[in-house]
Parts: sequence; structure tokens; C-alpha cells
Amino acid sequence: MIVVKIGGNVLDKPERLQRFLIDFAQLPDPKLLVHGGGKIASTIGQRLGIASTMVAGRRITDAETLDLVTMVYGGLVNKQVVAQLQAAGCNALGLTGADANLILASKRQVGAVDYGFAGDVAGSQNINVGVLEAFFAAGLTPVCAPLTHDGKGSMLNTNADTIASVLATALAARYLVRLVYCFEKQGVLWDPEDDASVIQRINSQTYSALKADGVISAGMIPKLDNAFAALQQGVAQVLICEAEALASITEDYYSGTMLQLA
Amino acid sequence: MIVVKIGGNVLDKPERLQRFLIDFAQLPDPKLLVHGGGKIASTIGQRLGIASTMVAGRRITDAETLDLVTMVYGGLVNKQVVAQLQAAGCNALGLTGADANLILASKRQVGAVDYGFAGDVAGSQNINVGVLEAFFAAGLTPVCAPLTHDGKGSMLNTNADTIASVLATALAARYLVRLVYCFEKQGVLWDPEDDASVIQRINSQTYSALKADGVISAGMIPKLDNAFAALQQGVAQVLICEAEALASITEDYYSGTMLQLA
Repeated sequence: MIVVKIGGNVLDKPERLQRFLIDFAQLPDPKLLVHGGGKIASTIGQRLGIASTMVAGRRITDAETLDLVTMVYGGLVNKQVVAQLQAAGCNALGLTGADANLILASKRQVGAVDYGFAGDVAGSQNINVGVLEAFFAAGLTPVCAPLTHDGKGSMLNTNADTIASVLATALAARYLVRLVYCFEKQGVLWDPEDDASVIQRINSQTYSALKADGVISAGMIPKLDNAFAALQQGVAQVLICEAEALASITEDYYSGTMLQLA
Repeated sequence: MIVVKIGGNVLDKPERLQRFLIDFAQLPDPKLLVHGGGKIASTIGQRLGIASTMVAGRRITDAETLDLVTMVYGGLVNKQVVAQLQAAGCNALGLTGADANLILASKRQVGAVDYGFAGDVAGSQNINVGVLEAFFAAGLTPVCAPLTHDGKGSMLNTNADTIASVLATALAARYLVRLVYCFEKQGVLWDPEDDASVIQRINSQTYSALKADGVISAGMIPKLDNAFAALQQGVAQVLICEAEALASITEDYYSGTMLQLA
């Protein structure tokens, strides 16, 4: 079982996205794709005159922003990806966390800060693994947008890296799961200016040291935190690599950064 | 098996929509919901500065309009409906025609007029009934947006009444299907100014006469044409009624306009 996350910097480049989706379609079943879409949402939000409100570096999801991301992630991006996968011979099924009650979340509240319609997933008990198994049995490939729901009628906005991590963790109870984060760089870099300086392996100890030394940038920390959380909860392998590297991954070979517990 | 279509004039009224969805959630399984959303798409299209182009009374779906309806129908409306049905205890699964290859369509071309990304469905052989059966077996209720795909990577815009009619027709090969069109009026009216003047039954002969006499307005004709096409292809019953009447329908009772072949 392979769970792949594709990031926003690839999604908004049509040719790069199409190549990636053709590669993804070739992976053996069962497989699952999680996508982001923040850059496209920002562009359409600007055209609609919806301003982003940031508090302590995090976007506040007000009601208008929730409608925006529901449209863009759940509609525009998700259906373009699904239609292109169908054309590539992969029987894709687009999903949000509300569909089939796939991912139940609760509104984020940290201290006095109300993050609005941002959803936190408490754990893999809030993932409907049974329905994923039914989809796999029907030959379908789930394509998941970074949206959840609160069970009370509202959608919630949830980070795509987190969605990939919690889905991989929940599936790890029943499958041997490899989690692959695909993005625009070749892996985690020693030197952000040098694309060839990929760190081949990071374990829990070296991760702490790399953070302490400031080698790992602020933007990568949530992604790596999610990745190590998934490993600690039973995911067999986490790889961070360039979108173009997906086709070359085998059980014996990878390019990018492999994460390990020890 | 009941297939219900809910129209745009109910979808954009939150209280009316919520009441309708609670009623829909109470219907016995298996069931399927089709929704429109044209009014909401027009509002958001205006905010985005996307003008509608009309040719011979039909909207042309250019690339920008396709993105708009993919966002609004497949994302905003579909996920709001799914999240509210989940809250009402109905395990809803949002779908477009691309998801699970549910509805394959082809671009409309009538004579010299290119309607752009408007999709026509050739017939029920282009509906993936097998996957609908898998969803019903998993206890899921499909919620279908008025979007199809061309199998070559593009979404297409398809009328919601047509989607309801072709899905009901395809399901009629395996189930006894009742098709219910819910909208903002009490049924087909003798006098559009008089809400109480509901025509209780229309058959193929009286339909021709009502059209010839100009009793049936231009806007209702595509809906009724779709409905009679469904009856001719094996759908057991077609009812056109107010959204609020859904809860009171039983095998022995209805309010609204019942359509019959003879």
C-alpha cells in the first residue's frame, strides 16, 4: 500500500502535474493520493477579494475562506486530478473527509486563539478505514482533498501533510504502508541553495540535531513532524522526494530523503 | 430505490435546504441525490468577473466557466450537502461523473455551434451502475453534482435534470426506481401565477396537448422531456413536487405532479 501526497507547487504547473499523475497511475494497487492546493486557493481568493488573516504564522479559516477552500480543494483541484487520472487509466474517486465520513475532525482552539474552521484530527480512530477497504475492493483509487468535517454539518480546513499522515497511520493497522511526500525539490536539503545537497537518511536522533543546528527550515518542520508521527504509529517507510522521482521508486531503490525511527 | 433531484432555487436558501436534507436523510435506503447549483455559480462567477455567453438560449461553457462550475458544483455545493447529510445521519458520498468513472459524456456539438465544455450523455451504457451498487452495498448514499467527464482528462458541464434522468434510467435495469424532481413550486401548474393550480397527472398524450396549448412554460419543457425519457426507458414513476413535500411521499400518497406514459 502506497500513500502519496502531492504538493501545491506541482499542482499549479499543468505539464508537471500531468506527468506526475501518469506516473502515479502506473503504481501498483492499492494506492491513495492526497493533494494540497493552497497556491491555487490564494490566487482565486485574491480574485474574489478574500483576504487571508494570519495569526502566529497560521492562516485563520473564516467562513468565507472555508467556502473558498471547499470550492478549490474539493472541487477544482480534486476533480481536475480525478479526471486526469481517469484518462491515465486509474479509476480515481475524489473524496473529502466528509464523504463517506472518511475523516472526522474538530475545530482547532489553541489557548485563546480561535482558528475558525480549521480542523484537527485527534487520531486514526477518526478515520473510516472500513470504507477505504470497500473502495479498494471495488478497484478504486481514493484521491483525498485537504478537507475534513465536524460531524455537525460543517466542512473544516485541514493541512494536506496531516491528512496524508493520519490516513497512512490508520491504514497501517491493516496494510504495510509506504508514505511518499512528493514536492518540487529533490528531498530535504543540507543547503537550500544547492538542489543536489539531498540528505539521504534522517532518523529521530539526527532530526533533533538538524533542527537544533537550523539546517531544517521552518517550513519543513511540520512536514517532518507529521512524517515521524506516522513512523511512530506503524507506517513502514516515509520518503520525501521530487514529484518526478515517483516513477523510479522500487522496493530496493529510491531518490530523495528516507526517514527512519532509528 | 428513490432518485431525488434538488434544484438551485432551494440550494441557495440555507434553512430550506437544511430542512430538505433532513427529510432526504429519513428516506429508506438505497437512495441517491442529484443537485444543481446554477444560481450559486452565477453569483460567484459575477464576483470573479466571468461573463456567461449564451447562444440560442443555452450557456456556452468556456474553459473559465468550466473551472467555475467544477469549483461550485463539485466543491462548494456538493460538500456542503454531504456535510449536512452526514450531520443528519446519512452516510453521503459526493460524486461527479469523473469519480469512479460514474458518467462518461462527450462534448456537445450541434451543427456549427460549439457549446464548449458542455457534456452530453449518450445513454445509460455510459453510467457505471456496478460502482453505484458497490456504494449502496457499503451503506453509502451517492450525492451527484451536475458534472461529467470525457475520459480524456477534462470535466464537462451537464444539466442536473439530465443527470437525474440518466442515473434513474441506468438504475432501472436493476431496481424499481422512483424519480422525484424537487423544486421551489408545488408541481407543474395550470396557471404559473396560482401556486394551488397543480396539475396532478400528466401522461404522454396530455403532455403533447399541454405543450401545444402553451400551458407548460419553456423552462419546464427540458425537465419534462427528461422525465418522459426516463419513463420510456423503464423508470417506474416520476414525480415533480415542492422540496417540502418530500417527507410526505409514500407508496400510496403524493402531492405534486405525477407523470405517466399512458
